[in-house]
Amino acid sequence: MSDLTTYPADVLREFSTLVLSAAGAPPDDAALAADVLLAADLRGIDSHGVARLRGYHDVLRSGRVNATPEPRIVRETLTTATLDADNGLGLVVAPRANQIAMEKALDAGSGWVAVRNSNHFGIAGYYVMQAVERDLVGWAMTNSGALVAPLFGRTRMLGTNPLAIGFPGDEEPPIVIDFASSAVSFGKIEIARRLGQALPEGWAIDTDGATATDPKAVYDGGALLPLGSTRELGGHKGYALALMVDVLSGVLGGANWGPFATPFAIEAAPAGSVGAGIGHFFGALRIDGFIDAGEFKRQVDHLVRTFRAAPPAPGTSGPLVPGDPERAAEAERRRHGIPLIAAVAGDLEALAAETGIPLG
Amino acid sequence: MSDLTTYPADVLREFSTLVLSAAGAPPDDAALAADVLLAADLRGIDSHGVARLRGYHDVLRSGRVNATPEPRIVRETLTTATLDADNGLGLVVAPRANQIAMEKALDAGSGWVAVRNSNHFGIAGYYVMQAVERDLVGWAMTNSGALVAPLFGRTRMLGTNPLAIGFPGDEEPPIVIDFASSAVSFGKIEIARRLGQALPEGWAIDTDGATATDPKAVYDGGALLPLGSTRELGGHKGYALALMVDVLSGVLGGANWGPFATPFAIEAAPAGSVGAGIGHFFGALRIDGFIDAGEFKRQVDHLVRTFRAAPPAPGTSGPLVPGDPERAAEAERRRHGIPLIAAVAGDLEALAAETGIPLG
Repeated sequence: MSDLTTYPADVLREFSTLVLSAAGAPPDDAALAADVLLAADLRGIDSHGVARLRGYHDVLRSGRVNATPEPRIVRETLTTATLDADNGLGLVVAPRANQIAMEKALDAGSGWVAVRNSNHFGIAGYYVMQAVERDLVGWAMTNSGALVAPLFGRTRMLGTNPLAIGFPGDEEPPIVIDFASSAVSFGKIEIARRLGQALPEGWAIDTDGATATDPKAVYDGGALLPLGSTRELGGHKGYALALMVDVLSGVLGGANWGPFATPFAIEAAPAGSVGAGIGHFFGALRIDGFIDAGEFKRQVDHLVRTFRAAPPAPGTSGPLVPGDPERAAEAERRRHGIPLIAAVAGDLEALAAETGIPLG
Repeated sequence: MSDLTTYPADVLREFSTLVLSAAGAPPDDAALAADVLLAADLRGIDSHGVARLRGYHDVLRSGRVNATPEPRIVRETLTTATLDADNGLGLVVAPRANQIAMEKALDAGSGWVAVRNSNHFGIAGYYVMQAVERDLVGWAMTNSGALVAPLFGRTRMLGTNPLAIGFPGDEEPPIVIDFASSAVSFGKIEIARRLGQALPEGWAIDTDGATATDPKAVYDGGALLPLGSTRELGGHKGYALALMVDVLSGVLGGANWGPFATPFAIEAAPAGSVGAGIGHFFGALRIDGFIDAGEFKRQVDHLVRTFRAAPPAPGTSGPLVPGDPERAAEAERRRHGIPLIAAVAGDLEALAAETGIPLG
């Protein structure tokens, strides 16, 4: 990438907080949302960080997303709940849902919260890291606007529906798993388009269901493929995983699912609505409900070290542990700042000009 | 396949029950194990059914697996438990663990049980179907003997670690998701070897970490690849999924994990032991802890019909719903019997001769 502008994380966090406040979010909500956003930028998941600030600002400002949501629990047992997010930003409401799941787990061993009537919640990994800090196993999932074809289908029927889970270590860092159930993220298609590169087989199809090598085919109505890509390589498994995330995040809480899920509630789904907004699903398990937490964490350390020490495949430096690349990015970006591509830096400068909020 | 012998399911169930009894299992345990085995044969998952009866018989007979296990709960909260399976067959002990998870869910909204000191538990789908019949969301996972390389690794470090989850429908059949986290099952390598076919790229590697096209390379110490196969197609995601199943099934309950997991406890792991036997993980969620169960099931019906009606990819008849192929196999096999390849039929005939138990 050329043309990068680098900003300290604190500058972007402060700017994001003020911009979201200016768009109508209460200060605490704005600060929380900015924290979730910056977690993405720090961890190198650029597509989910301040690159989306313009979009969030606009939907709050226009009222399409509720800037002052009052989420409420609509059903509850000792260990489960459904939260109606009142059409708030996921960035604001999802941390509360996750908090409820964690509190239930601390009380009763496990806690599970489905969320409906919500919107984008940032990176799923953010939520499981909150749980890991409390010695819990944390889970987070969300559905999202349809972009992925089911195996043997040729149209967009599922979101890139990510699944995250985290396990704390003792001396070693936690295992933080966070991945989309599609073969690749939409961000990779965007990068290929920008660079004028062909897509490898297995990433996407065009509207006829044929392999798309031109990134433009995806913008023109094509679809991403599920993890596994083809029947031969297990595309039915990635499709099933996306469906699992969709039922838990969408159907269980009464949100939209499948082709009806849209990233922001007001963007009318193509074929009507089957629920409220998009949905998330959070879970937490108390480790000492199964095993001594210290023993668990020592075994996680042992596991992490065992996998790091495994013989490398040719041309690689050996297996990583899930969360490693994000931790490396975070260490680098905390030291040297967050590099933004020109398009994103330009968005922020325009927001600064519009709102009168200084960028740094 | 040529050379198939077909038996009615009831004949195989009765035979399996008597063979496992003769090997030392109490009659109720033998009947339960036979039921789990036949669920695999009926659903077309031939690798997990009576094809394994000889192996189960032998490990029980030799005492390597405990024919009369007394599983006990070693730790428990309202919604979690760890069960020590007393080195019993998973087929016998895992249904009890699943039962505990379901009872906890019915009482408190959710239930989660980790199992250690266990052995093969058959098909994961069996357990989630038990939950679905009770209007629960059911989860089942297990680790297994190492056979899969992590991304960027070249040695066997993880089992094919399956994940299953089931969601009940109303008029439509349930969604039953059950898949191994490797790109393909070992059974597919076995079939290619028998037919003298080359493996497609993305299934397996040899001991140098190079793509294996000869199935023999896997038997000679090579490894399967995780779902996603390569970095470009998302192999890090399948690896993370396998690791998730391993930590929940292995580490959380105090079983062996990763390269230390062996299918039967007595087969010494290559580098020592880090826990007891192999491990499973079961979960159940009470649907009406989140949403009216009738409403949930009607939405599942709607979802199932929506996906079935989605436009087909070229050369296909359109998307399936997870569980469809197994249901089709079951309908066919209930009518016409279970076809066994010569090697398996021969195993059963030999068992019949040895034990004096008639096969049909």
